[in-house]
Amino acid sequence: MSVKNSFKTFNPFKNSYNEVKYIPDTITEIEKKVILATEAAKILSKKSYADISNFLLEIKSRMISNKEQIKEVYLSETGLEKSRFEVEFKRTIYQLSHFSDFILSENWENKHETVEHFNGKKLTKKKVGLGPILVLGASNFPLAYSTIGGDSVAALSAKCPVILKAHPYHTGTSLEVYKSIYTAINNCGLPRGTFTHVIDSGHENATFLTQHEEIKGIGFTGSQTGGEAIINLVKSRRDEVPVFAEMGSLNPVFILDLKKTSIAYLAESLAHSVCNDRGQFCTKPGAIFIPNNVIGNMLSIELKNNIIQYKTGPMLHPSLRENFETKTSSIKNIIGDLLVFESEKKAEFHVSNKVVIIAENEFNKVELLRKEIFGPYTTIVMYENDPINNLDLFDGQLTCSIFSEKINEEIQKEPIYHLAIQKAGRIVVNDVPTGVSVSKNMHHGGPYPASSDSRFTAVGSDSIYRFLRDVTIQQYLN
Amino acid sequence: MSVKNSFKTFNPFKNSYNEVKYIPDTITEIEKKVILATEAAKILSKKSYADISNFLLEIKSRMISNKEQIKEVYLSETGLEKSRFEVEFKRTIYQLSHFSDFILSENWENKHETVEHFNGKKLTKKKVGLGPILVLGASNFPLAYSTIGGDSVAALSAKCPVILKAHPYHTGTSLEVYKSIYTAINNCGLPRGTFTHVIDSGHENATFLTQHEEIKGIGFTGSQTGGEAIINLVKSRRDEVPVFAEMGSLNPVFILDLKKTSIAYLAESLAHSVCNDRGQFCTKPGAIFIPNNVIGNMLSIELKNNIIQYKTGPMLHPSLRENFETKTSSIKNIIGDLLVFESEKKAEFHVSNKVVIIAENEFNKVELLRKEIFGPYTTIVMYENDPINNLDLFDGQLTCSIFSEKINEEIQKEPIYHLAIQKAGRIVVNDVPTGVSVSKNMHHGGPYPASSDSRFTAVGSDSIYRFLRDVTIQQYLN
Repeated sequence: MSVKNSFKTFNPFKNSYNEVKYIPDTITEIEKKVILATEAAKILSKKSYADISNFLLEIKSRMISNKEQIKEVYLSETGLEKSRFEVEFKRTIYQLSHFSDFILSENWENKHETVEHFNGKKLTKKKVGLGPILVLGASNFPLAYSTIGGDSVAALSAKCPVILKAHPYHTGTSLEVYKSIYTAINNCGLPRGTFTHVIDSGHENATFLTQHEEIKGIGFTGSQTGGEAIINLVKSRRDEVPVFAEMGSLNPVFILDLKKTSIAYLAESLAHSVCNDRGQFCTKPGAIFIPNNVIGNMLSIELKNNIIQYKTGPMLHPSLRENFETKTSSIKNIIGDLLVFESEKKAEFHVSNKVVIIAENEFNKVELLRKEIFGPYTTIVMYENDPINNLDLFDGQLTCSIFSEKINEEIQKEPIYHLAIQKAGRIVVNDVPTGVSVSKNMHHGGPYPASSDSRFTAVGSDSIYRFLRDVTIQQYLN
Repeated sequence: MSVKNSFKTFNPFKNSYNEVKYIPDTITEIEKKVILATEAAKILSKKSYADISNFLLEIKSRMISNKEQIKEVYLSETGLEKSRFEVEFKRTIYQLSHFSDFILSENWENKHETVEHFNGKKLTKKKVGLGPILVLGASNFPLAYSTIGGDSVAALSAKCPVILKAHPYHTGTSLEVYKSIYTAINNCGLPRGTFTHVIDSGHENATFLTQHEEIKGIGFTGSQTGGEAIINLVKSRRDEVPVFAEMGSLNPVFILDLKKTSIAYLAESLAHSVCNDRGQFCTKPGAIFIPNNVIGNMLSIELKNNIIQYKTGPMLHPSLRENFETKTSSIKNIIGDLLVFESEKKAEFHVSNKVVIIAENEFNKVELLRKEIFGPYTTIVMYENDPINNLDLFDGQLTCSIFSEKINEEIQKEPIYHLAIQKAGRIVVNDVPTGVSVSKNMHHGGPYPASSDSRFTAVGSDSIYRFLRDVTIQQYLN
C-alpha cells in the first residue's frame, strides 16, 4: 500500500498554510469505502423515508452541537468571514430540514410510489435510488455545497449512499462536518457506508472514483474546466452513469429602463451582488447591460464607484486568486487600462474588486468577457437600443436578470424575456441573481455550459430527481 | 451539392428488393431542415398545450385516412404480417391519443407550471422544451417507434420540433406516415419545421445530425451496438445534450415454483413471447430459468416443443437475419449441437426458431448467452436451488419477470424480487415481458445497458420528461 504525501490547508486571511497535516486516502482505503457504500445501498433501499428523514435531522442536531468546532476550522481555511459562516451554516442546516420535511410530505407521498390499474393489471411505479453517489466538495461553499451540502442531502434523501471527496483546501472543515454525520449514522443505526469521506491533495482519488463501476452517479459544483474534466472521465467509463455538473455562468443582467430614483438602490444591490464574499458565487452577475443614456450613465458611474469602494479581501484559495489575476490582466491587455477600474487592496494578498465599462459593440468583440470570471469582477456594458442581440450571443446560463420599472405582466411580453427562458435556468425579475433560495420551485441549473444536464436542478427539493430512477412493478390484480 | 446514390428497400416476404428508389438527403438539404426546426422551436414554445393536443389528433385523423397506403408499403418493407400491422397501427394512433389527452389533463396542468410564494417572492417553475430533437427510426417498430412513434410524439408534446431520420429499410413506410404529419402541420397552421424528414441509406446523415449544435436532444431505440455508436457521437460534441437510447436487454424470466396444471399455459405464453413476429422485440425473454425438477423438466420440454413448432418467417431485414444466424451459430460452436433445438423453416430465407436447454452452471460459463440475441431465440436454464445468483451476474435490464404460484405479497418478500428492482426497469409478476402497455405508470428503460439513462422511460406519458427542462421565473409579488 503506497503511502501518499501529506498536505496542509491554507489560511487566506493569514496568507499562510495551516499547521495540521492531512494524508490522502490510498486506493486500497477507497476500495473499502466503496464496498461499504455498495452494502449500504442495499440496506438503505429498505429503509423508510421516515428513517431517512430522522437521519437528516440527527445530522442537523449534531452539526448544531458541533457548530463552534466547525466554525473554527472554516474560518481558518476559507478566507470567508464569520458573518458568511453564519449565513452558510444556517443554509446548510436548513437544507437538511428542507429535505427532511420534503420526503415526509404529502407531495412526496403522492409521487414516490403510485398505482395505476390498466387493462386488468396493476402497475406500481416507484422511485428507487441509483446507488452509491460520488459528491465532489465545492470550493466556494465549504459547507452548503460540500460535505453535507445540497448534493449529499439530495442523494441521501434518495436513499443513495454518499462517497464525499473533500475539496483539498477545505479538508479540515470537511472532516469536522463529517464527524457530525458519522455520529448521526451511529445514533440512527444506519450502515457505516451510508456516508464515507475521502481525502486527497489532488485529482487522483476523484479520478479513480469517477471510473469505479459501483459509483452510480456523480454530483459536482465548480468551474466549467473542472466540470468538463469530470464529465470527460465519466465519458470514458464502459457504462453510462449520470453526472450532474453545475458549472460556469456569466449571469447577465439587463436593465431595460430605469428612473433616476432607482439609481442608488440598483448601484448598491448590484455592487453587493458582484463583490460580496469576493464575488465567489456561481450566480455572480458577470455582465450588466445598462442603457447608454443620461440616467444609464449615472447608474454605471455610481455602480462602478460602489464596486471599487467595496471592501476587499482574500479569495478562497491561492489558485483562484491566481486565476482571477491572470484573467483580469488579459482583459486589461485586450481592452486597455483606461476602461478597467479597480479598488485599492487592504492587503497585498487580497484581490481588488474590478469593473470594466465598455460600449456594446466593443464588448461583443472580446470573447473573454462573455465567459465567467470567478471573483469580484463585472463588465458594465452600455447598450444603444435593445440589448437582446447581446443575450443571443451567450451560451446557456444559470440565471438571466431583467430590471424594468414596468409591471411583471408587461415585462413578460418583452422579447428578451422569452429569449432569456431559452438561454437560462432561472429568470430573475427586478432582483440580483445571487442568493438562491432553497425551495420547491427553485431551479438552479440551465442549458450547457451552465450545467451538464438542463433537465435537473442542483438546489431545492427537485434536486432529488438527479439520483432517482423509476421502476414499474407489473402484477395481475389479486 | 453532391448527389448521393439512390437505394431501394427490401421485401423480406419476397426476399428481394422493392422497385422504388430513394435518394438520401444531402447535407445542404439537412441544414435547411435544421434551420426550419430551429425557427419552429421558437414558434412552438408559444403555442398552448391545447394547440399541440389538436395537432396530435389531426395527425391521428390523417393516419387513419391514409391507413391503406401506409399498410401497403409497411407490408412490402418489413416482413411483418397484416395482423401485426393492425396491432402496431392501433398502438401508434393510441400513442397520439394518449399524449393528446395527457397534455390536456389536470395532472399535467398541475405539473407543467407551478407557483410558490417564498420569502416575499413568487417562484414560477415551468417546463419548456429542449429544442429540436433528432429521432432515429427503429427497425423493429416501423410505426410505433419510428416516424410518429413514441419518441416523436413525446418530443412534439414537449413542444419540441422533431427531425426524423427514417430507418433505411423502412423509408417508404416512413415517407407514407410523414405525408399524414405534413398534412396535419398545414391543417393546424404550424410551422413547416415542426416535423422534418431525413432519408439516408447509411449512417452519414445521422452522424451529421448528432453533431449539429442546433439539435438539443436525441431519441434512439435499437441495439446496444447502435445505441453506443450514437452515444459516442454525442460524447464528441463540444456541448452536452441528452440522448435517450433504449438498447439491448436479455429480459430474464424466473420461474420460482410451478404446479403441473400451469405447464401448458406457461409453455404456450412463453413460446409466443419468444417467437411472435420472429422475436424481434426489445422485451423478448432471452433466458428462462426453470427449476430442475420433474415438473420443471416437463415445462422445459413442452416450451422447447412449442418454440420449435412455432411458425417461422423472415426477419425485418437481411442484416438482422445475418446477425441472428451468426450469433446462434457461435452458440452452437461453443456449447455443441446437442443442446440446440430448432424449427424447420417454411422457406430458405426464413429464420428457424431456436432454443437451448442448458444447466445453470454451464450457462454461466458462456458470456454470449447473457447478451441479447435479437430474433426468435431463448435459452432455457435449468437451475438447482435458487436462481438469484444468476440474476446477480446480469447487466441492467429492461425487464425481469418472476413467475410463482404464491400471492403477490409473498412474491414481494422474495430476495430475487428485490434484486430484480436493482437490475431492471420493470418487474413483471406472473406475465411475459413482451407487450409494453402505453400508460402513465409504464416504465420502459432501465440501468445501462438497457438504456443510456435509467431515470427516463421510452414509453408512456412520463417519456415526455426526456425532452423538457425546468425554468424558474423569480419575481416580486406585485
